[in-house]
Amino acid sequence: MNELQEYFASELPRINAQLAEETGRLEGLVQEVAQFVLLAPGKRLRPLLVLLTARALGYLGDNAYPLACALEILHAATLLHDDILDGADTRRGKASAHKTFGTQEAILAGDALLALANRIGAAYGDARLSYHLAEGIMETAVGEIREIGAMRRPSADRGLYLDIITGKTACLIRTSCRLGALLAKAPDESCAAAAEFGLCTGVAFQLVDDALDYETPSGDIGKPVGGDILEGKVTWPLILFLETLGAAEREDLIAALTRRSLTREQAAALVVRVRQAGYAARTREFAAEYVARAKKALAAFPASPETDRLLQAADFILTRTK
Amino acid sequence: MNELQEYFASELPRINAQLAEETGRLEGLVQEVAQFVLLAPGKRLRPLLVLLTARALGYLGDNAYPLACALEILHAATLLHDDILDGADTRRGKASAHKTFGTQEAILAGDALLALANRIGAAYGDARLSYHLAEGIMETAVGEIREIGAMRRPSADRGLYLDIITGKTACLIRTSCRLGALLAKAPDESCAAAAEFGLCTGVAFQLVDDALDYETPSGDIGKPVGGDILEGKVTWPLILFLETLGAAEREDLIAALTRRSLTREQAAALVVRVRQAGYAARTREFAAEYVARAKKALAAFPASPETDRLLQAADFILTRTK
Repeated sequence: MNELQEYFASELPRINAQLAEETGRLEGLVQEVAQFVLLAPGKRLRPLLVLLTARALGYLGDNAYPLACALEILHAATLLHDDILDGADTRRGKASAHKTFGTQEAILAGDALLALANRIGAAYGDARLSYHLAEGIMETAVGEIREIGAMRRPSADRGLYLDIITGKTACLIRTSCRLGALLAKAPDESCAAAAEFGLCTGVAFQLVDDALDYETPSGDIGKPVGGDILEGKVTWPLILFLETLGAAEREDLIAALTRRSLTREQAAALVVRVRQAGYAARTREFAAEYVARAKKALAAFPASPETDRLLQAADFILTRTK
Repeated sequence: MNELQEYFASELPRINAQLAEETGRLEGLVQEVAQFVLLAPGKRLRPLLVLLTARALGYLGDNAYPLACALEILHAATLLHDDILDGADTRRGKASAHKTFGTQEAILAGDALLALANRIGAAYGDARLSYHLAEGIMETAVGEIREIGAMRRPSADRGLYLDIITGKTACLIRTSCRLGALLAKAPDESCAAAAEFGLCTGVAFQLVDDALDYETPSGDIGKPVGGDILEGKVTWPLILFLETLGAAEREDLIAALTRRSLTREQAAALVVRVRQAGYAARTREFAAEYVARAKKALAAFPASPETDRLLQAADFILTRTK
C-alpha cells in the first residue's frame, strides 16, 4: 500500500461516519434514498480533496469532515438526477435509485440533497463557502445540459467536449479544492492555485473515465461495452477517431449516433477499432497534460505531506483502470 | 385599487426587471427555460413578502431585490420539478416547461435555478441567509416527497395533510419572511415573528388553493375540474367530506382515489357534492384561523405602512378567487 492509499484508508472511516451522521438526520424516504446512494462504497475523491487541500494550506482544525461530505452529497445528488436523465437502470452493477424508489422520489431526494449540501456549507458561517458551493452546482447543471444538447446532435467538436467535461465533472472537483483552501483561510493566490489544481485534475479524471469506456473489455465498470457510443456520447477517443475518417464514413457514423441506431455488436466492434487505433491511449496522454498542469499549480503550496498526497492523487488519476 | 394592490403594482416592475437581469446572465438553454418560467406573469408573492418584511423591520437599503428574486427563482425551480412529478402537460393554460424543452432539460434547469438562488443569497455575505435558503429548499423537497407518498396511499389524515402543505408550500413562504427579517438585521424575536407570520400565511395560502379546486366551476385556473381528485390528492375539503361518509362508502372512494379510477365526470360530480356540503367554505374558515395567527405574530412588528401591507396581504389570501 502506498502513502496515498494509506492516507485514503485512514480517512475513509471518518468520512463514511460523517456521511452516516448527515444522512441519519434526514427523514423518511429522503433518508432511505440518501443512504442508498451515499452509504454504498465509493471513491470519496471529492471529500478527500477537501481534506487534503485544507490541510496542505495549513488547516489544523477538526471540523473539515462536514464540508468534505457536503461535496460527496452534492456529487450524489447530481448522480441521482443523472441516472434519470440517462435512463440508467443500474449504477455500478446494482439497480439505480430511481428504479428502486421511483423517479419522482429520486428527483426530490436529489433536490433535498442539493439543499443539504448547501445547508452544511452555510453552517460554517463563511458566505464564500456558500457562494462557491452554489457556483459548483450551477456549473455542473449547465455542463450536463450542454451534454444533453450534444447527445441530441452529436459532433466531433473538441472545444464543446472540453466545455462539457469541465462543466459536468471538473467544476465540482475545482469546488472541492477551492473550499478546502477557503476553510484553511488561505490567501487568494493559494485559493486560485487550489482551484486550478482541482480544475485540471477534474478534466484529467473525466478524460481517463472516457478512455476507460474504450479500454474495458467487459462490463467491469457496470456499463455495457461501448456504453457511451450506445448513448450517443461523443467523447475524446471517438472525436480523435472521427477526425481520421473520410467525410462520408464520418457522416454515416454521426448519423447512426444521432439516431442511436447502432446495435450492441456494432458498438462493441467500434470500441475495438478505436482502441486498436490507439485513441484510448492518446486520450490518457492528453489527460497527462492536464495532470502536469495540476501539479504545476501546486508549486505555490507549502511543502507538506498533504501537498505530496495531492501530487500523488493527480498521478493516480492517470493510472486507474476502473 | 387598494393600498396593497398599489404597493404590489409599484414594486412589480423592479422585481420583474431584476428577474430579467438574473435570468439574462444565464447561458444557453438554462436561460431559455429560466425565462420561460420566470418571465411569465406571476403573483410574485414571495418576493413581495421579502421586501415588505425587510422594510417593516427597518431595512432602508436598496439591495433587497436580488434576495427577493432568489425566492421567486427557488419557487420556479420547485415548479419545474413539480410539473415533471405531476406529469402536468400545462401550467396556467400554456405548455409546461418539460413539455416545451424536454424532461431532462427541465430537471437540470431546475437544479441550475436552485443553485442560482443559493448563489444570489450567498453574495450577500451573511451565512444565515444561505442557511435558511438551503433549509427552505430542503423542507420543500421533503414536503413534496411526503405528498407523493400520500398520493400513492390516499387517506383522510388531517395531521399528514397539514405536514404536507407546511412542507411543500408554507416553509418557502416562511423562508421569504425570515430572509426579509435577516436582511433588516432584525433582532431574533422579530425574525421569529416574521417566520411565524410566513408559516401561517403559507398554510392559509395552500388551504385556500385547495378550497379553490372545489370552488372553481370550469378550468379557470388552468386545471380540469376536480384536478386534485383526479391526481389522487386528498386535500382538506375532501378530508372533511370523507369524515362524514359511512365506512363502506369511504373505503370505496379511497380505493378509487388510490387506483385513480374516477372518470372526469365522477370527479366533477364529487366536486359539486363536496362544495354543496360546504366543505370548501369550511376550508376557507380554517384558513382564516391561520390568517388570524399570522396577524397576531405581527403585533411584535413596529407600526409602519409595510406592517399594514403585510396585514392586508394576510387578509387578501382569504379572499382570492383564483
